[in-house]
Amino acid sequence: MRALTLNRSLDFKRDYPEPSPGPGESLVRVRMAGICGTDLELVQGYMTFQGVPGHEFVGEVVETDRRDLAGKRVVGEINASCRECEWCAAGFGRHCPRRTVLGILGRDGAFAEYLCLPDENLLEVPASVPDEAAVFTEPLAAAYEIFDQVSLRNDQKIVVLGDGRLGAIVAMALAAEGLKPVIAGHHRDKLARLEALGLTTRMEVDIAPGADVVVDCTGSAAGFRRALELVKPRGTLILKSTAAGAAKLNLAPIVVNEITVIGSRCGRFAPALATLTIGKVDPRPLISAVFPLEDGVAAFACAAESPNFKVLLRVS
Amino acid sequence: MRALTLNRSLDFKRDYPEPSPGPGESLVRVRMAGICGTDLELVQGYMTFQGVPGHEFVGEVVETDRRDLAGKRVVGEINASCRECEWCAAGFGRHCPRRTVLGILGRDGAFAEYLCLPDENLLEVPASVPDEAAVFTEPLAAAYEIFDQVSLRNDQKIVVLGDGRLGAIVAMALAAEGLKPVIAGHHRDKLARLEALGLTTRMEVDIAPGADVVVDCTGSAAGFRRALELVKPRGTLILKSTAAGAAKLNLAPIVVNEITVIGSRCGRFAPALATLTIGKVDPRPLISAVFPLEDGVAAFACAAESPNFKVLLRVS
Repeated sequence: MRALTLNRSLDFKRDYPEPSPGPGESLVRVRMAGICGTDLELVQGYMTFQGVPGHEFVGEVVETDRRDLAGKRVVGEINASCRECEWCAAGFGRHCPRRTVLGILGRDGAFAEYLCLPDENLLEVPASVPDEAAVFTEPLAAAYEIFDQVSLRNDQKIVVLGDGRLGAIVAMALAAEGLKPVIAGHHRDKLARLEALGLTTRMEVDIAPGADVVVDCTGSAAGFRRALELVKPRGTLILKSTAAGAAKLNLAPIVVNEITVIGSRCGRFAPALATLTIGKVDPRPLISAVFPLEDGVAAFACAAESPNFKVLLRVS
Repeated sequence: MRALTLNRSLDFKRDYPEPSPGPGESLVRVRMAGICGTDLELVQGYMTFQGVPGHEFVGEVVETDRRDLAGKRVVGEINASCRECEWCAAGFGRHCPRRTVLGILGRDGAFAEYLCLPDENLLEVPASVPDEAAVFTEPLAAAYEIFDQVSLRNDQKIVVLGDGRLGAIVAMALAAEGLKPVIAGHHRDKLARLEALGLTTRMEVDIAPGADVVVDCTGSAAGFRRALELVKPRGTLILKSTAAGAAKLNLAPIVVNEITVIGSRCGRFAPALATLTIGKVDPRPLISAVFPLEDGVAAFACAAESPNFKVLLRVS
């Protein structure tokens, strides 16, 4: 099958072997997939991943034991868990120590014609949700994960640090739920695009310290340091993005100012898909370009350029 | 007056100027003071502090406008706040941005014959509490601060990482409140001493990951990294100790495992003093040595040596 593969370098291949579903898994033909910051990190060496990257997708179930899934258009939660351990029993398969993660850890991903996922990971997409919105279910679920972890109030000063695709979707989710996030970034062009979507933005240098909550979506150590400066004593820093490798950091401000740092990763798909279905969030204005899978390498380059937000791959 | 002073190096002086209390402040003659990890850090350059270090003390009020304090034996909260800002109004003078901190930030400390503190920082010590216990009020308050920040349960696996004086007092406080902390450290001799006090200890290499809560009392970047390994996904890492300078750290595990990191610094004195008064915690077995103030430099050296825990200075 056609696939983008990562083995030190990213390459397009026409003859990559098709995956075959294991027990309890379905085979999905990918329709559309999204490139995320994590994918760009993987190319830089994060997780030392080899294989087919890609974890944001919408596709069609083409082979399954589950009648209710056959032929359905679906999105899929990306953590494939063991179903047996205490984490899985508690409903936290996303933290199963034996999990594989689509396109990130031990499992080929969505930048290919076909992928496999456990049946229970798949959610049918309502007909009213177009592919171009459904493909955002995964990042939107990651944004909604914040609500599963922290109680936020609309009288709080909330700064979303980072004006990239992650910061944008997080701010959209927060705003959709009645909060008043301010996106702080370095890129005037990106901030202007986000302002045009009705979001509140500021150049990062213009943000004063004293935020109740800072959501760090920068994916950089410098961003984390800046987030520690912006959050007020006893405030909350939500760390959304991972960065490849270690960086010099001084954690003393966390202690001195008694900051709570909350790591936040993947979220449940159901609330995000419901949000897309009722149109509470429309992420489509974040689409900067759509490339065919064959041009995946160029698509990655495009995704890394400012002021681009989401770059999609049309796969089939 | 006699004083230990820090100006790059630590020195004992006989002719250091006596402090004079500002408006609303009392003058305290120090009876006994304790050396803490932060003091050792200050000598290494933390906070670029110059002057008289020392923030754990018990003393006598010798000059004050407050009749109820005159002549009383007292301990004192170390953050001197502006009393005017929103933080002070909310009862969080410990986070007042204009605060000075006894022996740490902009205010000479307790390793001297006299110190000054705002009247409202001073708490009378009941006669039943000896100096050798009262001098632990500050570190015990810092340990009890954890209870003001996090709800802990006695069915949780709680690891106190670090077998030094901070880890010891934190574990004592947790145990006193019915929890079941395990102290993990590198020093067999220290762990044996702590076991003899009725605390549960393990060599750190023998601790398996999966703790609900890890309290990092190591004061080192290596300790923080180890704490991130030991805490289970969605668990809580309480960061108690500061370290001078930056170190190479990878924060990805915080995000991937959705860890909550809570910085924890000073605490309210009243609960700690009450705990000492009713004998719920007796920290005196942690005293390794008592030096006269004149031998303060040697006392610092002693405090830095294993298996010593608390080293005290007898000042007057």
